[in-house]
Amino acid sequence: MAELSVVLLHHPVVDKNGLVVTSALTNMDIHDIARSARTYGVRRFYVATPVKALRVLAAKIIEHWESGYGSTYNITRKDALSLVSLEHDLDSTMLALERESGARPRLVMTSARAGPNRTSFGVLRAQLAVSSEPHLIVLGTGWGLAPEVIERADLILEPVCGPTDYNHLSVRSAAAIILDRLCGAR
Amino acid sequence: MAELSVVLLHHPVVDKNGLVVTSALTNMDIHDIARSARTYGVRRFYVATPVKALRVLAAKIIEHWESGYGSTYNITRKDALSLVSLEHDLDSTMLALERESGARPRLVMTSARAGPNRTSFGVLRAQLAVSSEPHLIVLGTGWGLAPEVIERADLILEPVCGPTDYNHLSVRSAAAIILDRLCGAR
Repeated sequence: MAELSVVLLHHPVVDKNGLVVTSALTNMDIHDIARSARTYGVRRFYVATPVKALRVLAAKIIEHWESGYGSTYNITRKDALSLVSLEHDLDSTMLALERESGARPRLVMTSARAGPNRTSFGVLRAQLAVSSEPHLIVLGTGWGLAPEVIERADLILEPVCGPTDYNHLSVRSAAAIILDRLCGAR
Repeated sequence: MAELSVVLLHHPVVDKNGLVVTSALTNMDIHDIARSARTYGVRRFYVATPVKALRVLAAKIIEHWESGYGSTYNITRKDALSLVSLEHDLDSTMLALERESGARPRLVMTSARAGPNRTSFGVLRAQLAVSSEPHLIVLGTGWGLAPEVIERADLILEPVCGPTDYNHLSVRSAAAIILDRLCGAR
């Protein structure tokens, strides 16, 4: 089984008008996606922002739960946050992951929009079962990953769809569903 | 296909020591679960708290997005929040749903803990496909639904599991996965 890691990118992402922006870091994204990552056996959850002040802030909050007062108050939070690494961007994340796992990861891009060359969840799930390459799932904040990031894909996952045409899940919910579809008990 | 509704209960739920408490309302629970509900075709998403001041606060926030400035700023949020109804507790929620749908809903309890008489996702999915009864999925905040609520179940769903023994998803993530397993495209 291939090892999965996840990165949450805050730049370059698009806003609701399609402009490339840097989004703010959201504390609950880190907690929720760390818990989902821990549940589904993800190796590492990278939180990437180019804004140094936000990385410092995130590090302080994580430290509170990992070794400060919070580490005894809520052990399940400490356990999940131990998967989190703070990074600058996609390149620094790939380097860090390659250093840790010894191989360049396959880049799995996610998007709420349909498009050509999407890979279905079933196909990726089957690939993961027989692959030994590390895979990095790339999630975008704001209104999603900028086209320049998606272009770097080794593969692009199909969007998460329900029986309606509404495709505006929170990134926290989308991450949970994506990991469940790829790694959940069947 | 049976119609699904969801209720998020803030009382009676348990804290980490197993004591029955009333949890605080979390703004992001409402937004995230409303978006998931909208994605998966849920009829109504009830947010139940016995604390009147919190219902008033939630109503104000929802009003901002439904008809205030936010309704033009973010149309996808307005669309999702139109599913939300504020209620007092499980009893008032069941009455409201029965008034709307004309039949007493089947109560589907959720729990992160394994136990006797759990119904699998596959079995409930198959039941929903052929049933005409409304179903109400009951989610707990804090550390989960109090035993006195779970006892009222028509059925109890199996816990959401990944390949690890960690079972501490956020309620936002659990709601997303539960709806995807019951109503997602397969």
